[in-house]
Amino acid sequence: MTKVAILGFGTVGSGVAEVLSKNSQGIARRAGGEIQVKYILDVRDFPDSPFKDCFVKDFSIIENDPEVEVVVETIGGAKVALEFTTRALKAGKSVVSSNKELVATHGYELLQLAKANGVSYLFEASVGGGIPILHPLINCLAANEVEQITGILNGTTNYILTRMIKAGLTFDQALKEAQDNGYAEKDPTADVDGHDACRKICILSALAYGQHVYPQQVPTQGIRGVTLADVAYADSCGYKIKLLGRCLREPEGKVCAFVAPHLVSCENPLAGVEDVFNAITVTGNAVGDVMFYGRGAGKLPTASAVVADVIEIARDPKADRGNQWGPGSEDLVVSDDHLTSRWYVRANASMDQARLACGEILPLARSGAPAREAAFLTQPMTRPQLMDRLEGMEICSLFRVL
Amino acid sequence: MTKVAILGFGTVGSGVAEVLSKNSQGIARRAGGEIQVKYILDVRDFPDSPFKDCFVKDFSIIENDPEVEVVVETIGGAKVALEFTTRALKAGKSVVSSNKELVATHGYELLQLAKANGVSYLFEASVGGGIPILHPLINCLAANEVEQITGILNGTTNYILTRMIKAGLTFDQALKEAQDNGYAEKDPTADVDGHDACRKICILSALAYGQHVYPQQVPTQGIRGVTLADVAYADSCGYKIKLLGRCLREPEGKVCAFVAPHLVSCENPLAGVEDVFNAITVTGNAVGDVMFYGRGAGKLPTASAVVADVIEIARDPKADRGNQWGPGSEDLVVSDDHLTSRWYVRANASMDQARLACGEILPLARSGAPAREAAFLTQPMTRPQLMDRLEGMEICSLFRVL
Repeated sequence: MTKVAILGFGTVGSGVAEVLSKNSQGIARRAGGEIQVKYILDVRDFPDSPFKDCFVKDFSIIENDPEVEVVVETIGGAKVALEFTTRALKAGKSVVSSNKELVATHGYELLQLAKANGVSYLFEASVGGGIPILHPLINCLAANEVEQITGILNGTTNYILTRMIKAGLTFDQALKEAQDNGYAEKDPTADVDGHDACRKICILSALAYGQHVYPQQVPTQGIRGVTLADVAYADSCGYKIKLLGRCLREPEGKVCAFVAPHLVSCENPLAGVEDVFNAITVTGNAVGDVMFYGRGAGKLPTASAVVADVIEIARDPKADRGNQWGPGSEDLVVSDDHLTSRWYVRANASMDQARLACGEILPLARSGAPAREAAFLTQPMTRPQLMDRLEGMEICSLFRVL
Repeated sequence: MTKVAILGFGTVGSGVAEVLSKNSQGIARRAGGEIQVKYILDVRDFPDSPFKDCFVKDFSIIENDPEVEVVVETIGGAKVALEFTTRALKAGKSVVSSNKELVATHGYELLQLAKANGVSYLFEASVGGGIPILHPLINCLAANEVEQITGILNGTTNYILTRMIKAGLTFDQALKEAQDNGYAEKDPTADVDGHDACRKICILSALAYGQHVYPQQVPTQGIRGVTLADVAYADSCGYKIKLLGRCLREPEGKVCAFVAPHLVSCENPLAGVEDVFNAITVTGNAVGDVMFYGRGAGKLPTASAVVADVIEIARDPKADRGNQWGPGSEDLVVSDDHLTSRWYVRANASMDQARLACGEILPLARSGAPAREAAFLTQPMTRPQLMDRLEGMEICSLFRVL
């Protein structure tokens, strides 16, 4: 029997309680014993919840109860969650989290603290929601050197882009629809400006390359600048616009990590990832490309990943999870400036000017384009090379081609 | 330091040696110590191999060397491989295998033997080649009841179908091309008749539902009956023809498992899986659909999965892997007759006859169709219901719609 405390009874926390209850038999069989929710910490009251007898408002009750082996942190943010996670680990309890912000900003110190206290800090649900990705990356791909990771890591922006592509909605219309459907927050900044994807690529980088990558080290561009004109031009040449989080292995132990909209060829399975789904492609030097696909958010999918971590701890509380990483450093992350790729450019210019500036280009067309709009794909080059060539041109959109 | 013996220096065996050597540093870090190939068993001589000092021809040398902790079995087949696996497990060595035939036919007894000897029998590479699927299914999806698994499990047939769809080759032409490219054996029976996919769905079923499923219990239809006419009709309504291995959870602990060509909607990510790639979709009652995609065969991808298993054992030789399953039984597997779905039918008949027989149908068209050929999609029904309605009609092709 493993006793669990859940911190925060929001979407994910209540999903964890629900999954543990609904699938209790199978979970007990696979965990080697029953897993029971003993406490749920929330400032609110839930008098009608089937778990109503578990609610507490004082974290120290959980902290001081030696029966609680695993604390599930689904509070979010990096304030109260940091305090409670720290206290739980110090009290010798393993912590399972879905909190990408906390892992991306304090993962190194919390993993150290877990190690020092002989317990685990697991956070499969923090990246890709229900998609198994962190555990397979550490374990199933352990024979590989990871060359790069490329992910559609944010469901909200993928929903917005899908609706722009498929229904011809503008960014503002699609955002409104996403908000109406509960896929976007009232304040959508964290999603549409790429911060959420940034936190997730930080976690993936740290696990793949062994050193903490901080969000502020990762150049991050969201999707506010993507227009229907860009979507139409991309479509005309067999591409879809996707917000990608990427990290790449660099010489001398450095890492290149960034978040930006990209043109993705329809031949690439990532292009087919629609609506709120997420997908992550890992490129290993032995396995080549493997892709993990599924629901990147939502109550039960995210709870599925959280509970899998709880089961892993219940099965073997003291095992080394292999998810430690080293401290970050100021010069760890290199800019993507040196990265060669084709580019999509939309500019207030003539196609002749574009050719003159960029040499061999693939001109793109769309119906209803204004006279002095040139959109085209360049030959492969770095960003500085491109900016050099585009000097003096009035650029409207500029995205990498994956 | 973990010492390993590799049985069989063919494609996969030599890939395992190569990956262990090429990525030795990272592997040692993740395994918590060096992993060294001590022996390679093969009847042939490899005087120019960098591993030439490791070769032995007598298995008892490996069996009797207490230094060997892990035996990698990449011989294939269920004869010598069964003998050596049995002897290795009895000698207290863990065995890692890529051999789907052996696991599908003798998995239960070998897992029991491993347990009795306090060692592991792992076979991640036996399904999906380099794709992490068995480990994530057991561990990362452990919070779910698995509703069903649907997989493109055989790269050879997927290559043939892709070439038929994209290049308009006939089955025979595409098979010939696959053989010329080394994607199909001289005797392609195991692949094109679905036996290979059948073995893999047996393994997935056993892990998902906990009892051994034998290949002879699983109705298996290959792709020899798929024609260019079928491919064209499928294309006309937004579907692709894919050979799927499927298993579904049934009441009273039963399992429905089968292998057959299906029409897969282009909206389904499985439809986009091309060439020799494999993909497996697992549907859990919490997570919904998650899909795992990658190279289902090949030297280094398969070796990636084998070596991951070796690393797992090296990290913690005595851990319970949670991959045990129970014995099979004669009445475990139920036929897919009760499974309701839409059907694709191509018949020597008029569309009026088809309508008369099947009621509301979606008629399909292709250029160059003979006068008395009717192809259509039915409403959802079971196979017996369909066969009842089609009685007396001359059927050319009959596939389920996924």
